Order: sequence, then structure tokens, then C-alpha cells
Amino acid sequence: MNAIDARLVELGIDLPTAMAPLANYVPYVVTGTLVVVSGQLPAVDGKVAVTGKVGAAVSVERGQEAARLCFANVLTHLRAACGGDLGRVRRVVRLGGFIASPPDFTQHATVMNGASDLAVAVFGDAGRHARSTIGVPALPLDAAVEVEGLFEID
Amino acid sequence: MNAIDARLVELGIDLPTAMAPLANYVPYVVTGTLVVVSGQLPAVDGKVAVTGKVGAAVSVERGQEAARLCFANVLTHLRAACGGDLGRVRRVVRLGGFIASPPDFTQHATVMNGASDLAVAVFGDAGRHARSTIGVPALPLDAAVEVEGLFEID
Amino acid sequence: MNAIDARLVELGIDLPTAMAPLANYVPYVVTGTLVVVSGQLPAVDGKVAVTGKVGAAVSVERGQEAARLCFANVLTHLRAACGGDLGRVRRVVRLGGFIASPPDFTQHATVMNGASDLAVAVFGDAGRHARSTIGVPALPLDAAVEVEGLFEID
Repeated sequence: MNAIDARLVELGIDLPTAMAPLANYVPYVVTGTLVVVSGQLPAVDGKVAVTGKVGAAVSVERGQEAARLCFANVLTHLRAACGGDLGRVRRVVRLGGFIASPPDFTQHATVMNGASDLAVAVFGDAGRHARSTIGVPALPLDAAVEVEGLFEID
Repeated sequence: MNAIDARLVELGIDLPTAMAPLANYVPYVVTGTLVVVSGQLPAVDGKVAVTGKVGAAVSVERGQEAARLCFANVLTHLRAACGGDLGRVRRVVRLGGFIASPPDFTQHATVMNGASDLAVAVFGDAGRHARSTIGVPALPLDAAVEVEGLFEID
Repeated sequence: MNAIDARLVELGIDLPTAMAPLANYVPYVVTGTLVVVSGQLPAVDGKVAVTGKVGAAVSVERGQEAARLCFANVLTHLRAACGGDLGRVRRVVRLGGFIASPPDFTQHATVMNGASDLAVAVFGDAGRHARSTIGVPALPLDAAVEVEGLFEID
């Protein structure tokens, strides 16, 4: 077992089963040493588990859990991109976070920490990433959060 | 005629005339083997052809047409980036889709398929891409959809 | 003093002090010849200086100033990524602009010009970039604008 998989076990994280893409695209593309992972929804067993707007029906804490779930789904695809070996990940380069929320919501960064904290918990210093987080009026399938990722691998 | 241009003819697609950037930027930048194409609006003859919100004044079907038009405009610039030869495209790496829509809209992925399906129709397996699709309250010039692209070329 | 720093002096631009990331992430990541800079808010002295929605409480002109401020913050981090030497920047590859604004707003591109014009003023032709600009309902800390950047360096 590589160090990253060991860390996942230690964190009690069982990566989710991949959710099928909603359309004619793929979950990730590798170009050179970069892996681009498609925007992931907070899916469990292939179904969106957290729907609605953060700051309205969805609390900030639940939004954080959603962001964490999104990143777990990103990891599922990243592992596939690495041929099963997350030990090949050299750096989490960038995460993009989209938070479905009303116009008066301002705690987007706090919500997105659910993803960022998991990245650092899993990869340590290599998990420290650039990030852009924005509010959006709605997401596919009424998901509360969507997270996309860019990674450097060996 | 290269295989991709032949495919465009077969699909009956005449790439649109480039719309002038709305400001002090350029339609694409090449860095290494990557081409970054600026967010494109659903323009025909240099004018935005589909305005309004998808799921309100604009139907899902019309939104799909808008997404397809956006990707046709992306292709126009990608061809220029390739010095006129779309046969140099090795992979559609990522598409970003922005769907102007109300907060209760949830079919963003279906709309974005208008772009994704065209990418695969034109490039085949090399057209299968990573993708992030989100809802937005509004887009420049009241466009219904905006699509940006990342490509790997020879 | 390198040519870019000289140009900043000529433009009367004193790069802002870096605002601390709002969470468990970093302001930039270098991968190969690319620098990815996290989404920056219009911060002065580490505090968001322009809040509210452009097209409502915030005028288009003030929104442009906010976009310019965001890009100045991007430059602060880019300089750090270059070990202090902005002369190493080969190209501004892409800027992403997020404009907090109501659903009937359509002048997002004009607002984002505040960032794009500064990029070209500072870097000349190397400052001409690909760009995607979208409206969003809200941004972290109620910021009026957020700008992220991708750069190629030596």
C-alpha cells in the first residue's frame, strides 16, 4: 500500500464509487504531467447526496461536508488517472470551488475548506494548492457544491 | 483537406467568423503544447445570437444550440491557434461551461451537451474531454451560454 | 530594477501587501513553466476594499477599479512565484474574471477590462491574455470582483 492510500485508511476515508459523467465527457484527462479532473458533485454511491443552496436550506457545516465529498470524488478519478497509484501525485495544483448559494451569502471560503482541508490531510505539503472559490445560483442536479481539480503527477 | 476539416464538412459545419474580443485580450494563447481559448459566446456573424436565461425565456433545446454555437466559435480560434490546421489537435483537454439560468434550474449538464457532443462529433475519441459546468446569473452581453476550452496540440 | 518593475513605478503602481489566504490553501503553485495564482479579491492592506454587487450598489467604474485591484494582488503573488523577479514572466496566459452582479447585468466584460488593461500596461504584448468573464451572485467576503491568473515563466 502506498503512503497516500495508507493515509486514506488512517483518515477513515473509503473513496466513493465513481459517479457516471452526466453526458458526453470523461472524468479526467491527462496531458503531459497534468491531470485535469472534471467538476465533481457531492456524490455518494453515484447519487448527489447534498442538494440545495448553502446559506439557505443547507447549513455552512453541511456545505463543508459536501465540499469534502466532492473532493473525495475528485480523488476517485485522480486515482484512476494514476493507474491506481495515488503515490504518483506530486502536487495538488489547483482546486476550483463552486458554491450554490443566495446573493447575500459570503462564507464561500469556509465552505470550500471542506475540500481544501481534505487535500492537505491526504497529501500533506503536496496538498497545498491554488484555489478559486465563487458563488453560483445553481449547479447541475441541484448539487450544493461542485469541485474541479488540477494535479501534477509523476 | 485534413481529416478534421473533412469531418466539419461532413457535419455541415461552417465555422463562424471570429467575434472580436470584447476588450483588451486575445481569443487564445498557446503555451507549450497547450492552447487556452477565451470564453466564447454563442455568436453568429460576430453578434451574440442567443440571449436570455436558459430555463426561463430560453428553452433547454435552444440552450443546447447556444452551447454548440459557443463551441463552434471555440473551434474557429483553435484553428487559428493551429495555423489553420485542426489536424494538429491531439486532445480536447477541458471545456468549461457557464449557463445563464435562474436559481431553480438544474439541467445545466444537458445544455452543455450541445458543446460536448460537437467536440466528440468533430474529434472522435480525442474529443472526449474533462468538463466543469455551472449556472451563472448572467453573462457578458446577456449571452445565454459561454464556453471556454483547453486543448493539447502537436 | 528589471523592466517590469520599472514599468510598475512608471505606472505609479505599488503592489499591495499580500492578503492571507482565507483558508488552507496557498496563493500560487508553480508546475513546470506555469504559475497558477489563486482567485484574488480587491484587497488593500489585506482587506477587501470593494464589496457589493456591480450594477447595483457598485458602479461599473468602481467595478473596474476593483478588477484592477484584484490583478494588482495577482501580481503580488506572481512576483513571489518568480522569486521577486517579474522579468521572468514570459506571458500572461489566462485571466478568469468573476463579477458579483445581479441577473440583469450585462457589462461584465467592461468591468473585467480593469484587470486586462493593467496586464497589458505592465507586460505589453506579453500581457495579452486569454480570458473568461462571468457574472456570479456573490463572492467570498462580499467582494465585488475576483480575478485568477495563469502565467508562463522562464
